[in-house]
Amino acid sequence: MAPKVQRSPLAPATFPELPAIGGVRFASAAAGVKYKDRDDVMLAALKPGSTVAGVFTRSKTRAAPVLDCQSKIGQSDTSGGAAIIVNSGNANAFTGQSGSEAVTAITTSVASALSIEKERVFSSSTGVIGEILSHARITEQIPNLVKGLDAGKIADAAQAIMTTDTYAKGAHRLVKTDQGTVQINGIAKGSGMIAPDMATMLVYIFTDAKIDQSHLQSLVSELNEVTFNAITVDSDTSTSDTLLMAATGASGVTISAHDVEFRDALHQLMIDLAHQVVRDGEGASKFVEVRITGAVNNQDAKIHAMAIANSPLVKTALAGEDPNWGRIVMAIGKSGAAAERDRLTIHFGDIMVAENGWVSPSYSEELGARYMQKQDLVIAVDLALGEAQATVWTCDLTHQYITINADYRS
Amino acid sequence: MAPKVQRSPLAPATFPELPAIGGVRFASAAAGVKYKDRDDVMLAALKPGSTVAGVFTRSKTRAAPVLDCQSKIGQSDTSGGAAIIVNSGNANAFTGQSGSEAVTAITTSVASALSIEKERVFSSSTGVIGEILSHARITEQIPNLVKGLDAGKIADAAQAIMTTDTYAKGAHRLVKTDQGTVQINGIAKGSGMIAPDMATMLVYIFTDAKIDQSHLQSLVSELNEVTFNAITVDSDTSTSDTLLMAATGASGVTISAHDVEFRDALHQLMIDLAHQVVRDGEGASKFVEVRITGAVNNQDAKIHAMAIANSPLVKTALAGEDPNWGRIVMAIGKSGAAAERDRLTIHFGDIMVAENGWVSPSYSEELGARYMQKQDLVIAVDLALGEAQATVWTCDLTHQYITINADYRS
Repeated sequence: MAPKVQRSPLAPATFPELPAIGGVRFASAAAGVKYKDRDDVMLAALKPGSTVAGVFTRSKTRAAPVLDCQSKIGQSDTSGGAAIIVNSGNANAFTGQSGSEAVTAITTSVASALSIEKERVFSSSTGVIGEILSHARITEQIPNLVKGLDAGKIADAAQAIMTTDTYAKGAHRLVKTDQGTVQINGIAKGSGMIAPDMATMLVYIFTDAKIDQSHLQSLVSELNEVTFNAITVDSDTSTSDTLLMAATGASGVTISAHDVEFRDALHQLMIDLAHQVVRDGEGASKFVEVRITGAVNNQDAKIHAMAIANSPLVKTALAGEDPNWGRIVMAIGKSGAAAERDRLTIHFGDIMVAENGWVSPSYSEELGARYMQKQDLVIAVDLALGEAQATVWTCDLTHQYITINADYRS
Repeated sequence: MAPKVQRSPLAPATFPELPAIGGVRFASAAAGVKYKDRDDVMLAALKPGSTVAGVFTRSKTRAAPVLDCQSKIGQSDTSGGAAIIVNSGNANAFTGQSGSEAVTAITTSVASALSIEKERVFSSSTGVIGEILSHARITEQIPNLVKGLDAGKIADAAQAIMTTDTYAKGAHRLVKTDQGTVQINGIAKGSGMIAPDMATMLVYIFTDAKIDQSHLQSLVSELNEVTFNAITVDSDTSTSDTLLMAATGASGVTISAHDVEFRDALHQLMIDLAHQVVRDGEGASKFVEVRITGAVNNQDAKIHAMAIANSPLVKTALAGEDPNWGRIVMAIGKSGAAAERDRLTIHFGDIMVAENGWVSPSYSEELGARYMQKQDLVIAVDLALGEAQATVWTCDLTHQYITINADYRS
């Protein structure tokens, strides 16, 4: 059994208020896939005309539901309704032929209950790898789920998809346009980039704006790079990571490719959810922003940022509140991207730590040690080689991470 | 202060017997660079005619002694003697201009005391990053060191270069050739691929064979790839990693590029030392061999092997004696190298765990859990895509790693 894990010290105070959004209804149920006495399946039903876009794990050992979603995304016929069904407790990953059979059984059953095409039913599974998903437990609940569909039930849906998460994750944004107001709701789960027993990152975003599928897809793909693809807990990548976004059009407001306000609001909502995932990182006690500037190109900037954010030695130093800037120099050096030792400038928040290849004369260990006691930290490195930049977010590596991942199954 | 760390449970019983080798003498001394009451500098003096080859960290933030060594390796004039001087306690890394000044002061001083060219004096430093190296403490000891030079003192040298190591590392091989017998001795330090405060991997190998410099260099470069470049403790790369090999020629036996016995003996000695480094990995409680076969090419094989060996989730599972093969599937999937989910075969030692994209019918958790209790483990993955293979070695990720790297400075 997993240890009783306390709510992350970095958790937000409460789950936000998510207002009902036109064109999407939610239901959740306890199917007993693995957990007892809690909801572990959620269904979202989308009105006819809804478009759906998605981004997925790049893993070469992707789970069956991911492969199924990828084959369905981009359908141009949106005349019928659509649906998303998600279970926690079993990832239906590395389950051979039975994996895709389970996906077919579940999506066919949802399609039939809602009288929609099965090509418009998207599914995700999160939990244990390598165990057969008892899909009958889920399909048995579908009549129940369909009966319970309710525009106000998104918070229950956010609860149902949790695995090792210590809190449910949600965010809301409202956008005013010339044509009227549109809303965006999002829910997410994840508390490690992965922990194959019981984790993975899943994100579902809903808006009542009307957005055509190809535009929705490019918006989501682009923003994903600077939000969910810019966070890391432990450098490991799930076999099941999935982000789906649905635009129901119920508001009657059409959003075009040039609508900056909508784009900004969606970007902020995605950052908000991505940060919530990091703040629930397994064992996290610090939330850390890593900013790289002055890189030759954006790719190099991100490689450096991720090298710092994923370094076990940097992450353990953060856990120990140790202002160990030598480990940041090390991470930049090992990343493989362009850097010149004697041009580096390193800051902890506003504190200049190192410049011109050596510790700054104004820096002291006391100054650094005091800064490290904060819960939210910023590590900034300027490479002084070019104009490109990247920001990523991570957490520290603590004893609790080892406890969660090493101790409970032995 | 660092916590008192106990001798690694994976340590060999004793330091091996290293016989004196013709043409090289050692001395060590307590210079008080950082540690008190122990030797922290070692000098190796090589007879005229010795050739020296080296491989170094690829870090872009390399330390001053590494840059200096790299500029000196490959000298064709070997008529005079040569020397290697190494200090522990301070890495002389990220120390700006003062870093190269310290290297010049130390190597010039050794050159003058031994009446050799300063281009033939190689130095390494290991320890804290970012602090000025008080080179006078070292140069003051040089007359003393020169006076103490003794062919039998290699074990003391192995002690003097230790930082967070919990035991000194040495290995010996003897090679019989048609012309006579040659010997090889090696010493190493390291207990993390890096811990910039106090670690780094340093390796010094000596033989009395006569080997020309270009041949020695290609031999060392080639064998390094499958030995020291095939181990990982925590995926971090030091700013100071250095391997130097010297061939004194004192045996009168010439080794050519085609001498398979010598090559094999050197390969085995390097594997031996590399394994000793992993067995002293910070916090290690398991020694793990990761074997990839059936890859499209050698590079892909190594990428997969390193993805498994560096995955925090795999390493914590090993620490917990958890036969969590799902995390191995995850690591293969995320590595970026070619793999097909449904062709993977996974073994723990002789136990078949998974085949054809799913758990093997003959496998049980009990079987896996019993295997995981062993101290030395083998994880083997066959990709069934080609003929290429790679083997790497690592250790587990334990609470003790966090304690060593997070707790002592806070």
